[in-house]
Amino acid sequence: MLSIYNTLTRKKEIFEPIHPSHVGMYVCGPTVYGDAHLGHARAAITFDLLYRYLKYLGYKVRYVRNITDVGHLENDADAGEDKIGKRARLEEIEPMEIVQRYTNHYHANMAQLGMLSPDIEPHASGHIIEQQQFAKKILENGYAYEMNGSVYFDVEKYNRKYHYGKLSGRKLEDLITNTRELEGQKEKKNPYDFALWKKMTPGHIMHWPSPWSEGYPGWHLECSVMSTRYLGEKFDIHGGGMDLLFPHHECEIAQSTAALGTESVKYWMHNNLITINGQKMGKSLGNAISLNEIRFFQEAIHYLKRLMILCPSVFLSFRHTTAVLLTFQTRQYRLRKKDWNDYGREWLCSTGLPLHPPGRLMPLLLNRKASMRLMMI
Amino acid sequence: MLSIYNTLTRKKEIFEPIHPSHVGMYVCGPTVYGDAHLGHARAAITFDLLYRYLKYLGYKVRYVRNITDVGHLENDADAGEDKIGKRARLEEIEPMEIVQRYTNHYHANMAQLGMLSPDIEPHASGHIIEQQQFAKKILENGYAYEMNGSVYFDVEKYNRKYHYGKLSGRKLEDLITNTRELEGQKEKKNPYDFALWKKMTPGHIMHWPSPWSEGYPGWHLECSVMSTRYLGEKFDIHGGGMDLLFPHHECEIAQSTAALGTESVKYWMHNNLITINGQKMGKSLGNAISLNEIRFFQEAIHYLKRLMILCPSVFLSFRHTTAVLLTFQTRQYRLRKKDWNDYGREWLCSTGLPLHPPGRLMPLLLNRKASMRLMMI
Repeated sequence: MLSIYNTLTRKKEIFEPIHPSHVGMYVCGPTVYGDAHLGHARAAITFDLLYRYLKYLGYKVRYVRNITDVGHLENDADAGEDKIGKRARLEEIEPMEIVQRYTNHYHANMAQLGMLSPDIEPHASGHIIEQQQFAKKILENGYAYEMNGSVYFDVEKYNRKYHYGKLSGRKLEDLITNTRELEGQKEKKNPYDFALWKKMTPGHIMHWPSPWSEGYPGWHLECSVMSTRYLGEKFDIHGGGMDLLFPHHECEIAQSTAALGTESVKYWMHNNLITINGQKMGKSLGNAISLNEIRFFQEAIHYLKRLMILCPSVFLSFRHTTAVLLTFQTRQYRLRKKDWNDYGREWLCSTGLPLHPPGRLMPLLLNRKASMRLMMI
Repeated sequence: MLSIYNTLTRKKEIFEPIHPSHVGMYVCGPTVYGDAHLGHARAAITFDLLYRYLKYLGYKVRYVRNITDVGHLENDADAGEDKIGKRARLEEIEPMEIVQRYTNHYHANMAQLGMLSPDIEPHASGHIIEQQQFAKKILENGYAYEMNGSVYFDVEKYNRKYHYGKLSGRKLEDLITNTRELEGQKEKKNPYDFALWKKMTPGHIMHWPSPWSEGYPGWHLECSVMSTRYLGEKFDIHGGGMDLLFPHHECEIAQSTAALGTESVKYWMHNNLITINGQKMGKSLGNAISLNEIRFFQEAIHYLKRLMILCPSVFLSFRHTTAVLLTFQTRQYRLRKKDWNDYGREWLCSTGLPLHPPGRLMPLLLNRKASMRLMMI
């Protein structure tokens, strides 16, 4: 018997798949415009564990994890530059070269962590037609509107019949006051409406023809489309990081319900985040420690609900809980004796952690660069 | 200075890129419905060598190698079942699970062989819109016609202005008599016309909407589309196996010329094939030795223009040329002493090859399964 904490109901529920013996599971994968960091690893490990356990229980599992290679804009909303397009512009190469490079890196990192590969790893750019069809359905059902070549989801209208906010617990009236005014937002009926299709602006690199304009799909759309395409209109598990709960997953529920007339997901699961001094670790936030810097941290995941990487002074108060456990890749970061004396050992001693821990518990062993970095936080 | 044998001109030519210091290179990749075999490895190694050498010469190279995951039908023409769709039907899983599994295997095999990853690895299914746009252009230019929801390339009309057969040296009049009559061919004006878009038949799994019908792109179209999308309308090098020369590459030239009014490729390069008793090695021919059976054969490529795997009796006559050189993955296939005595050593002695070859030349060391297989041919 497996119990799952369902974010939707906020309860621990006994897991019962929709179709006996089969499980469909969709997990939000990375936006491939930079190297994977500890946050990506945590999500991957969490759902790898679940995938393995479901298989161990005898289920035939189809695990789908997407690659976002288009439509994810800088501020996670409907304005700003495409993350991949921007990186491509800065490096003066084709966006798909960025996608390929960081997809390869991601796969290599996942292999290093011993992760199983998903059964299907669909790309957003590989499902443009399907996204257009999905947007058309939502338009036909009356829950979206076209404005100047872009198509927006009509949150207020949807909320009259269904419940926008049921996953995140947010209320529409609070959203009105909290939504920032961003460039290109004026054509929306309401600031919390979100794009299903965006008309391209001059200079935007990745774009496709559509019934509405030359443009690109909204970020949230791909997951509604690819999950239901490969797992059916109703499927068992949708996973992702806690940071995706709102607006991404909330919008996914709205999209799928508006298009299909029914909710798609039975169990919503969210892994908690890795934080640095209380702030989410994220590439776009500039505080990420990449998996190439610290390549193995598998052991850590078992011991903490919320992983924290803290400066030494704060760390001291946590030392008895053996708070942060990171193993390190000795081959890559083998410390020269001098470096070790200068930085690592000195700092490690200051934390009060045992230098030769018993059993499999390893203290925070850091390479010079990473320890420097932590000490400077 | 680099000289390239250009299949198009049938001459060795001095390599001069279209844009100084930049090289665009497109190579036909695998159809991912089964494990990669020696034939795939040969193509990959050939162009990996070229890719490395061009980089060594100081060029900024963009190397594109596609993944065919849709539209490649069983008989390499316009009839029969989709190769991936068929495999999916037989295994009762989703076609994209087949694609994912064998793409992963292919990547693992390429990594084992030490191949560099291409800069872009586009999927045919990820470029359906672009293929439709390309077909539209050919229709608009008058070199294709629609029939019952399918779109066919009008070879005869094209040949009036351009030259169909310039790459392969085939003549249109010979093609008429040599083209088999296949199911679904009757709607073509001429049997050598080929599909740009095929209307789906009932039961076909992978299909998309289009201006003509719910269907799927013709196999040849993807390479014209993805090569010019990522390398521009004119690019330097197009590579592939000799078996793709006709009809695949011939049709690519026709498509690109018909759509763009100009030929796209400056240098056509073809690697020769691996044969078993004179027949091409191919998954669909049932005679393939997969890379999982014999995992390393890198050394072989240097010594032979045409690799041959032959039965021992034939092999004897080739022994002085050290004809077939295959190295093997000892960890995977470490022979128990008994097995070695029973099969390997006995057979190896019969070939007359030295058991302890000098230098880096290794004799044909085979695992039990593979040696059995060769002996039974």
